[in-house]
Amino acid sequence: MTTTPSTSAAPPHAPARRLVIVGGVAGGMSAAARARRLDEDARIVVLEQSPYVSFANCGLPYHLSGEIAERSDLLLHTAESLRAALDLDVRTGHRVTAVDTAARTVTVATADGTYDEEYDALLLAPGAVAVRPPITGLDHPAVHALRTVPDVDALRGRVDTVLAAASASGRVARAVVVGAGFIGLEAVEALVARGLEVELVELADHVLPPLDAELAPLLAQELRAHGVGLHLGTSVTAVTDGAPEGTVTVTLSDARTLPADLVVVNVGVRPASDLARDAGLELSPRGAIRVDDDHRTSDPHVWAVGDAIEVRHAVTGDAGPVPLAGPANRQGRRAADSMLGHRTTPQAPVQGTAIVRVFGLTAAVTGASQAVLTRAGIEHEVVHVHPKHHAGYFPGAESVHLVASFAPDGRLLGAQGVGRDGVDKRIDVLATALRAGMTADDLAELELAYAPPYGSAKDPVNMLGFVAQNALDGTMPQWQAADLDEVLATSLVLDVRSAAERAVAHLPASLHVPHTELRTRLDEVRDAAAGRPVSVHCASGVRSYLATRILRGAGIDARNLSGGWLTLEALRPDVAA
Amino acid sequence: MTTTPSTSAAPPHAPARRLVIVGGVAGGMSAAARARRLDEDARIVVLEQSPYVSFANCGLPYHLSGEIAERSDLLLHTAESLRAALDLDVRTGHRVTAVDTAARTVTVATADGTYDEEYDALLLAPGAVAVRPPITGLDHPAVHALRTVPDVDALRGRVDTVLAAASASGRVARAVVVGAGFIGLEAVEALVARGLEVELVELADHVLPPLDAELAPLLAQELRAHGVGLHLGTSVTAVTDGAPEGTVTVTLSDARTLPADLVVVNVGVRPASDLARDAGLELSPRGAIRVDDDHRTSDPHVWAVGDAIEVRHAVTGDAGPVPLAGPANRQGRRAADSMLGHRTTPQAPVQGTAIVRVFGLTAAVTGASQAVLTRAGIEHEVVHVHPKHHAGYFPGAESVHLVASFAPDGRLLGAQGVGRDGVDKRIDVLATALRAGMTADDLAELELAYAPPYGSAKDPVNMLGFVAQNALDGTMPQWQAADLDEVLATSLVLDVRSAAERAVAHLPASLHVPHTELRTRLDEVRDAAAGRPVSVHCASGVRSYLATRILRGAGIDARNLSGGWLTLEALRPDVAA
Repeated sequence: MTTTPSTSAAPPHAPARRLVIVGGVAGGMSAAARARRLDEDARIVVLEQSPYVSFANCGLPYHLSGEIAERSDLLLHTAESLRAALDLDVRTGHRVTAVDTAARTVTVATADGTYDEEYDALLLAPGAVAVRPPITGLDHPAVHALRTVPDVDALRGRVDTVLAAASASGRVARAVVVGAGFIGLEAVEALVARGLEVELVELADHVLPPLDAELAPLLAQELRAHGVGLHLGTSVTAVTDGAPEGTVTVTLSDARTLPADLVVVNVGVRPASDLARDAGLELSPRGAIRVDDDHRTSDPHVWAVGDAIEVRHAVTGDAGPVPLAGPANRQGRRAADSMLGHRTTPQAPVQGTAIVRVFGLTAAVTGASQAVLTRAGIEHEVVHVHPKHHAGYFPGAESVHLVASFAPDGRLLGAQGVGRDGVDKRIDVLATALRAGMTADDLAELELAYAPPYGSAKDPVNMLGFVAQNALDGTMPQWQAADLDEVLATSLVLDVRSAAERAVAHLPASLHVPHTELRTRLDEVRDAAAGRPVSVHCASGVRSYLATRILRGAGIDARNLSGGWLTLEALRPDVAA
Repeated sequence: MTTTPSTSAAPPHAPARRLVIVGGVAGGMSAAARARRLDEDARIVVLEQSPYVSFANCGLPYHLSGEIAERSDLLLHTAESLRAALDLDVRTGHRVTAVDTAARTVTVATADGTYDEEYDALLLAPGAVAVRPPITGLDHPAVHALRTVPDVDALRGRVDTVLAAASASGRVARAVVVGAGFIGLEAVEALVARGLEVELVELADHVLPPLDAELAPLLAQELRAHGVGLHLGTSVTAVTDGAPEGTVTVTLSDARTLPADLVVVNVGVRPASDLARDAGLELSPRGAIRVDDDHRTSDPHVWAVGDAIEVRHAVTGDAGPVPLAGPANRQGRRAADSMLGHRTTPQAPVQGTAIVRVFGLTAAVTGASQAVLTRAGIEHEVVHVHPKHHAGYFPGAESVHLVASFAPDGRLLGAQGVGRDGVDKRIDVLATALRAGMTADDLAELELAYAPPYGSAKDPVNMLGFVAQNALDGTMPQWQAADLDEVLATSLVLDVRSAAERAVAHLPASLHVPHTELRTRLDEVRDAAAGRPVSVHCASGVRSYLATRILRGAGIDARNLSGGWLTLEALRPDVAA
């Protein structure tokens, strides 16, 4: 047996002694803290270009609104507190300008000049940079972002100023928010809370583009109820000086113009991977840093985590960046384990679980949306339910609007929800079920906590399972609101709601037979169908399920509208008369 | 190939045509509804001995309190509504007195006499009967139960009467509740809401016996804060006439007496399996009806579901009855599938997931408690965490007190939680994870929905996973509050909290070194330890984890108190000075 002489650097799998971490928020700081807990003797240097480390970036919109009143509440740690608790060497205002992977050094630029820092293990946690949309006048001082503490400081200052100016001149202050994603919606909510009139501009055809099209109208309705103007399928082309002085005019792609006192732009981010690229590390075609299961890059002494890296999607298997705080934090912890030779666990693929509060509503998603599944060519059955978030007979029951997609073998592929209460719980349960590879049968059998203030004996998640079982095993074939035009052309639509419900709105071409009368009026349905299939609907899909079974029991080819009128009306407001 | 002549009854696996269901609540009614949806032509008879079917039994305490104001809200369906919607033949006031499995008939007693009803498939959903504790005077008219609609009617009537009487004589009305289980606690809350002074008597040494001993004190504190008197480790021996007339005197096993205007007794239930036993069906030694995975009893034409049957526990594998509404409802649906030859899914073992609201607190459990694991001889590591239910920097963050047990290989065995908000969500996620066989590593990697109003980038469930990983892989050996006496005798206890925290309460025998000073005061700790292990604690277990790592990094045998002072103080209020 021969041995090679040891070098000054430890081999990749032995504990490293000099750790340098680029980026002091979320993933970077999680890694630094974990590294210290694993190795009391390591030298751990955190280099952060901004003045702040470990700040609550997800809290920024709530400081804008004033809901988080104290700015200091956003600053979870300081260099001093991190030195005291964790013996970390945290250097803010330190920007890393280059990585020399051969020499294992980084070049650091500070206000006082540049210097080189040596490392045995380097972690890149640089995050993301905002995408700059092609808007003329994007650098106008009225245009703001909402990604950092200085951003929110500037935006709060602007809000104060324009509120004062508007108040002095007896008019309302106006904001235009560009981009109706998660942060955009939080910005809208915050600006409305501050008393501004807000117009929201979104390029996609519905708000919160990751949401399925039939759920988004619930959010749009909530936004409009709070006075927010929506401009969907629209982009901003220019921001120019307006009148009175200090205001701007926002020009939209549909040629309309909106007067505004300030503009908030949030149209997405891209990986901040310039440093990694210049260092010769492997990037994905979309510019994300490629890492292995232990978050190691193509260089064995360099790791990377967070918004800058490429991850695998749990459902589609596609690789790409997923800029979310939760995964970034856990990646940091795992990367530290790897850097220090601790036991590592496999990196779970990312599901994209996310949630947003929009005034009184919550919208949340996990796994693949219908659009993503369709784009990926993954066959799926979609089910919609609208149960109450706790026992219907208990005061305060609110509808939870849930959509879930299942593979033909029953495996859960994605789920989304919107509602006033209980949505976060159901999405977290479904996110856990999805991670576990659960099927419709499994959801039907989940044993969740039931007492009237909390849920139902058959929880909304169980209901999703029941409905999916019935849809997948042929007990209850479905039709989808998205296919309405084809359904109207090729089948008889049967409305089994009550006369009172039908009077509010209905499809003119449909036959009306309340579900309790169906057993005695089967001939009427058979005659009207004239050999065509019968496409049943009620309000939510429950009574029409019974009707579908009655019809099928009588030998009639019937199918049930998934989600009922509630879903149809949201997706196709044009057809109800 | 030979064929046998067909008989009037269908073979077991073919659709049955005459279904008789004994019991019209929860499991029985779920089965009836599912059966109709599967078979439009079957004759479905539901025989219910009480005047009500499909009532909200879990809602009864909330009608007692008045939170569910309308009695009619408890009655989800009537015989008439079930006939109209589902063509069910529902017969209330019909008690089945005998089953003749050979003739396939049941004998039914009504106000008008008895008759026989034939069946092809029989479902027994008789529920449970209340255990009658050995109390002298249990039949006193002041003694009430809370399991049925007539029970709540009677109890509401009694409450109205005693409130009026007490008010007229210028005194408060008093109630004694016997049994601090789920329904007992709900009864306490309801009676306090009505303005009664309540004393709660429980034979076990803590309230809510399924809860781990270190969580129960949180409920006890909440009960006392609402004026409830607790008598733990105590039973009631007698209820006798009291003074003034109409009141009673409740005598306890500790010889104390309590004056009361009414007594509510809820000390558990046993399977209502007399009918099944008399019919010769196989019962468990504890009297539960034995069924197979499809809920079929020892007779091929008889199925059974709900509180009366024996189920397998998901963690211990033990068999026994588990009287919970959720499983009963799902069992009913599955039994109908089997009775009608529909595709059936395997019966999932029961986890015992349950939840209760106690004034401002929620307590919830899933899987095996520590006591159950210990009794079953199942090796387990227990971890305690006290994180906030959503981002700590967001207003309104409440502590979630979570306990979870893990097998040596990391598999989740059970979890419990108590707190003011967010407990139901975490227990549902943990119930889903437990069903999926997830490990500490899996919990650490769960991707749950995070935005400041809903959770944290590292959710409390992730935290449980992190802590369990550290405890199980030796990164952070633990000590448990339950072992305090042994720990005090054999190790140095090191308190790493701040001086201000220590001033409130501490273990007199402990050494105090704030965690931020530990690195410079290691010699002091080493001297005081004098070769003994060091048992570290802080308030919640986070800073003491850092301290444990610092000590171990310095070669000192250190271990961390699981759950910190919060857990210790709850379990051992006697030791804090």
